[in-house]
Amino acid sequence: MAESRSLKGVLAPVVTPFAADLQVDTTRWTSHCRWLLSQGCGLAIFGTNSEANSLSMDERLRLLELAASSGIDTSRLMPGTGACALPDAVALTSRAVRHGCGGVLMLPPFYYKGLSEDGLFAFYSEVIQQVGDDRLRVYLYHIPQMSGVPIELDLIERLLKEYPETVVGIKDSSGNWPNTKAMLDRFDDFDIYCGSEAFLLENMRSGGAGCISATANVNPSAIVDLFDNWKSDDAEERQAKVTEFRKVIEGFPMIAALKAVIAISSGDDEWLRTRPPLGAFNGDMLERLRGRLDGLSFEMPGLSRVQ
Amino acid sequence: MAESRSLKGVLAPVVTPFAADLQVDTTRWTSHCRWLLSQGCGLAIFGTNSEANSLSMDERLRLLELAASSGIDTSRLMPGTGACALPDAVALTSRAVRHGCGGVLMLPPFYYKGLSEDGLFAFYSEVIQQVGDDRLRVYLYHIPQMSGVPIELDLIERLLKEYPETVVGIKDSSGNWPNTKAMLDRFDDFDIYCGSEAFLLENMRSGGAGCISATANVNPSAIVDLFDNWKSDDAEERQAKVTEFRKVIEGFPMIAALKAVIAISSGDDEWLRTRPPLGAFNGDMLERLRGRLDGLSFEMPGLSRVQ
Repeated sequence: MAESRSLKGVLAPVVTPFAADLQVDTTRWTSHCRWLLSQGCGLAIFGTNSEANSLSMDERLRLLELAASSGIDTSRLMPGTGACALPDAVALTSRAVRHGCGGVLMLPPFYYKGLSEDGLFAFYSEVIQQVGDDRLRVYLYHIPQMSGVPIELDLIERLLKEYPETVVGIKDSSGNWPNTKAMLDRFDDFDIYCGSEAFLLENMRSGGAGCISATANVNPSAIVDLFDNWKSDDAEERQAKVTEFRKVIEGFPMIAALKAVIAISSGDDEWLRTRPPLGAFNGDMLERLRGRLDGLSFEMPGLSRVQ
Repeated sequence: MAESRSLKGVLAPVVTPFAADLQVDTTRWTSHCRWLLSQGCGLAIFGTNSEANSLSMDERLRLLELAASSGIDTSRLMPGTGACALPDAVALTSRAVRHGCGGVLMLPPFYYKGLSEDGLFAFYSEVIQQVGDDRLRVYLYHIPQMSGVPIELDLIERLLKEYPETVVGIKDSSGNWPNTKAMLDRFDDFDIYCGSEAFLLENMRSGGAGCISATANVNPSAIVDLFDNWKSDDAEERQAKVTEFRKVIEGFPMIAALKAVIAISSGDDEWLRTRPPLGAFNGDMLERLRGRLDGLSFEMPGLSRVQ
């Protein structure tokens, strides 16, 4: 097991490879997890970019089991365990705690819209109480453009008041920096991650905990390097590079593009597959992406990776 | 088993009762299913108003099993079997077909937003092909205000062309009558249900198949009566009554209100419970609802029900 460290820093929402029969490709998944760890990333498995909600609960439970049995340092794991159904969120969160995960990243239940603060508070409360384990560390997951269910600041305050030892942070994937800043200003001793490394330097300067970013799947070392050196004189320059790379990826459908970069860098086209309803890259998009990567103003370490 | 009949007509998205420990109350559930069948309703179990997405897949599979083993006529069942994860949608749909359900009502996968038509088509195609059973009858479920994933007319056309024997209808819960009308005008031999009985007469006059409506849980006989007599001289009057009742319920949070009406009419307060993230009625709301029901201009048959 690798040496344990705090979850502060850079985490990758680990993309999930699929075989031709659309089943999870566990060999490539484990290999990708190990590579990310070797680059200094924590593993936010079962995130939005992991196509986690396209996986059944059984598939998620089996992958968690696999990570633990493969000798991956589970203290570096922050699995997504939020779900629409309370029993699912409880089951997955319990299992994560039992496996020694450093924390869990919890989406709100995301089918019903216009939920009351009371309703959301009751949901998170039930999960925490039913899991009933002092080791549980919950990071809330604010991604209203996907979930349709925002996590408002008043809800956070209420959860922090009721569960100060358990509710320890949030990932803000709104892409709305003023919202992240409002959280940073309002809450102390609360680990705030931005959902894009484009805000990493600003987040760290404002007291943030790091970032949990899609593109950490393919550009981990440069983002980790920025995190490690955010106080250095050339931090702005490091920020500019990771942002330049991010903007290339943002020109394409995100999840398919991450997989395409891995396919390009490893020469392994098996990585191109997504599971419906998400679509994969077509040949044209792949060529366009290659061109954009070739046009980067710097050499990207991830592109020379060997699986 | 009751005599089988087509699913055309009125279906209730059966509300799900919960015990104090938030587990499904199977006794009350079965009893409510039987009562609805006795009133002439089909059973759209696992709908939005069933809190279906607040139930785990295991809970849904067990309820389906329970319905079948309780001697409920499964040909009158149209369970909701859509899910975010393809394996879940396949598993639940397969089980529904095996149990002889008359059809399934399929939400699109609803976590990712801005999905392409290709992606949605691929998802429904995979479900149909993986289930691989000629008996499967799919009704699409358009409820963009909850799912965030609309089912556009071009997608319907493509599915109808590829799977004319399997994709047989849709429930339009958008509440947007021009959208329902556009479907009615464009597709032949396609069973179109409105999601509110307020549009039932208009839907039938335009060639529709019936309605699948929340309030059929509590006002089934009057809605069934309107369906049975939509060509009669006093159809408008019948429509006005069911609409008057519907408007009362729409003044409250829908699912909690349906349960409250059942609690009031049966004198059984166990029915008041919802599962988080949905909230239940408080005492004030209950009194306000009682007052509104008392103020109805007609006697409502459902209110005198005996469990």
